[in-house]
Amino acid sequence: MNQSNTQIRMRRRPRGEVSVNDFEMVQTPLAALTDGEVLVRNEWLSLDPYMRLRMIAQRSYVPPLEPGDVMPGGTVGTVAASRDPVLPVGTKVVGRLRWETHSRTTSSALQQITHTDIPVSTALGVVGMPGVTAHYGLLELAQPQRGETVVVSAATGAVGSVVGQLAKAAGCHVVGIAGGPEKCRYATETLGFDDCIDYRADDFTRQLTKATPDRVDIQFENVGGRVMDAVLERLNDYARITVCGLISEYDENHRWPLTNTLQLLVNRVRLQGFIISEHPEYWPGALTDLAERVRQSQLIYSEDITQGLSNAPAAFIRMLKGGNFGKTLVHVADANS
Amino acid sequence: MNQSNTQIRMRRRPRGEVSVNDFEMVQTPLAALTDGEVLVRNEWLSLDPYMRLRMIAQRSYVPPLEPGDVMPGGTVGTVAASRDPVLPVGTKVVGRLRWETHSRTTSSALQQITHTDIPVSTALGVVGMPGVTAHYGLLELAQPQRGETVVVSAATGAVGSVVGQLAKAAGCHVVGIAGGPEKCRYATETLGFDDCIDYRADDFTRQLTKATPDRVDIQFENVGGRVMDAVLERLNDYARITVCGLISEYDENHRWPLTNTLQLLVNRVRLQGFIISEHPEYWPGALTDLAERVRQSQLIYSEDITQGLSNAPAAFIRMLKGGNFGKTLVHVADANS
Repeated sequence: MNQSNTQIRMRRRPRGEVSVNDFEMVQTPLAALTDGEVLVRNEWLSLDPYMRLRMIAQRSYVPPLEPGDVMPGGTVGTVAASRDPVLPVGTKVVGRLRWETHSRTTSSALQQITHTDIPVSTALGVVGMPGVTAHYGLLELAQPQRGETVVVSAATGAVGSVVGQLAKAAGCHVVGIAGGPEKCRYATETLGFDDCIDYRADDFTRQLTKATPDRVDIQFENVGGRVMDAVLERLNDYARITVCGLISEYDENHRWPLTNTLQLLVNRVRLQGFIISEHPEYWPGALTDLAERVRQSQLIYSEDITQGLSNAPAAFIRMLKGGNFGKTLVHVADANS
Repeated sequence: MNQSNTQIRMRRRPRGEVSVNDFEMVQTPLAALTDGEVLVRNEWLSLDPYMRLRMIAQRSYVPPLEPGDVMPGGTVGTVAASRDPVLPVGTKVVGRLRWETHSRTTSSALQQITHTDIPVSTALGVVGMPGVTAHYGLLELAQPQRGETVVVSAATGAVGSVVGQLAKAAGCHVVGIAGGPEKCRYATETLGFDDCIDYRADDFTRQLTKATPDRVDIQFENVGGRVMDAVLERLNDYARITVCGLISEYDENHRWPLTNTLQLLVNRVRLQGFIISEHPEYWPGALTDLAERVRQSQLIYSEDITQGLSNAPAAFIRMLKGGNFGKTLVHVADANS
């Protein structure tokens, strides 16, 4: 096995906004497997906002990436070589791996994909980490009650789109916040949100007030900054804030202040930040539920697909700026090539 | 019974900082009691930061005060006339009443003071609302574990001083934040805090970092603004923030922004705002515990006493600026005059 691996590494730590020059593509030889290892040939790579957070020198739940490190990422692929009898060649897997064409790894980083009736790429989106994130953050942490108002930012993204649909299914009044009229139309017309507001609109806060006549019981926060601040102003008594992401805060030396902190007190707010990888016990049940909802067309999803690993940095940067539409994926290779 | 009542009312809504001109002192006749009512002759009036929040036109857990309303406040007094057999004349009570010399009220606003071995004024402080606030916010919401680091702002105030001492008793490393070296010395030398930092010091954040080598597990927030922001930067994994008060945010049109919101996510923070009056079930047990700790000298307290109801507005303004030292009380009348 003398295959070569193509990887994308963080070349240097971004200063301010990420640039394609912060990455480098590298060819490395693939060493032979040792006992217990498998080689996964990656077909799909997931691009997610959390990766941006890993690039800054910020103390966090895992150490930050250092220059030269391969970018981390979820992938879907097929076992191409195996020294683990549990994962024979040909097994379809989803893994916590890296931006690379081939991954040497072990079973601890992999889950077998058992559902064959829905596209495997969903294992990186609606029936994967983003879907479980939405499920846990909304249903477990925020505990929506019928008739409550839920506001979700980045409403058409991989997480936000699931949050809103789960909230609708729970009987809530759902208001999305997204960038641009096209996304907002998609949220209401395709995803079934009650309303969706373009945060770029001049009268954004006025529209938000109008869309939340009973105020906001659940704020599912993916963005932070002025979008978060505007929703704080609309909170209701006993509101719950799920802090899932703060994408506006991931560029270093660039913080958007919050001014409406008084709302946390007067509304007796409960806020919870979380990282879904720390709740492994929650995943199996949530994945089963999400897959079933997809099968029954109760969960609509869309994918924003970029071809070729070499284009991953540009796709990643586009996503960070809100240029994606739905779950951002890189098609690394065909399944059977 | 032709006594006259002296009241202090909110004359107008403050613009910016509160001024003594925002209050007015009024004499009103006392009408005869109806069945079920009692007349309480107030001896002690409690001054608390929450009253400032009631003065602004902010949607909150209770409607804001309107010009002409009597200022609300906890008092300790004695039943001077009664048409409720449960509360005979002479009964010592603590009540959710008003800034006034005499209060016509009913049993629903009153609690009988049963402990006779500690000063009755403590029913407005360490064995009253502020004490229960500290008890609930620290022990029930934040759940301190032995060895954790607790930071409490307004550290020598009625709430903060109890928080810190309860946290020490729970085996925590306790760091207070207070205004000025005298208060800080009191926190460490008298209250037994491990450290106390003067937020007015030029190197406040550097001192805070030094005082929290293991970072901060519990942030008991009484202040908000830049003090809160500085502590956010020091949070630890799974930190809990109890939002008890945000005194820096109570002047209208004057908000201090928070910039370190990213810490809420990366540390998977749980934040909870609360209003102690909404947890009546918690009070009896907490009051018993607090009284016992006072008896055993495990809870030290100090009182900042102003003589005469007419001086309440000035004392209140002084407290809002941090000019008080310990629990702020107004001595309205002697017990047996």
